[in-house]
Amino acid sequence: MARFMDVHDGFLGVTAEQLSEAHAADLAIEAEEGVHFEKAWLDPESGKVFCLSTGPSKEAVRRIHERAGHPADEVHELAVEV
Amino acid sequence: MARFMDVHDGFLGVTAEQLSEAHAADLAIEAEEGVHFEKAWLDPESGKVFCLSTGPSKEAVRRIHERAGHPADEVHELAVEV
Repeated sequence: MARFMDVHDGFLGVTAEQLSEAHAADLAIEAEEGVHFEKAWLDPESGKVFCLSTGPSKEAVRRIHERAGHPADEVHELAVEV
Repeated sequence: MARFMDVHDGFLGVTAEQLSEAHAADLAIEAEEGVHFEKAWLDPESGKVFCLSTGPSKEAVRRIHERAGHPADEVHELAVEV
């Protein structure tokens, strides 16, 4: 299974609770595309969120985020990890 | 200790070995600033590298990367993690 990092902009000032809700919305439907969102990190000052996931394709990761109501601005396949 | 995600552009087509060397250069000097680079992920197609670290400040993370020869393009403090 490939690994992905996706990036969201626009989460300025978002709280821990709001991020948890967004993450829960992903987890609720992710299995339908064989995706799993392992971790999400937020920098509320810049509004950036980074999500680490595994799945069959970038498109599957993108679709889950769209259906959960928070489309990703970037999705990167992480071919190398150290 | 705070947690950071930094992003590098320009690693187009970089190999696993080259990423390991860059990561090793960070690890060799990181302790001088109380920084620890836990993980680095590369998307060789977009040339983006994401580095997850802990440390005392964004500036400390930035300095280690600069001294290791690969300045970060962005450094984000990850105030929230789910």
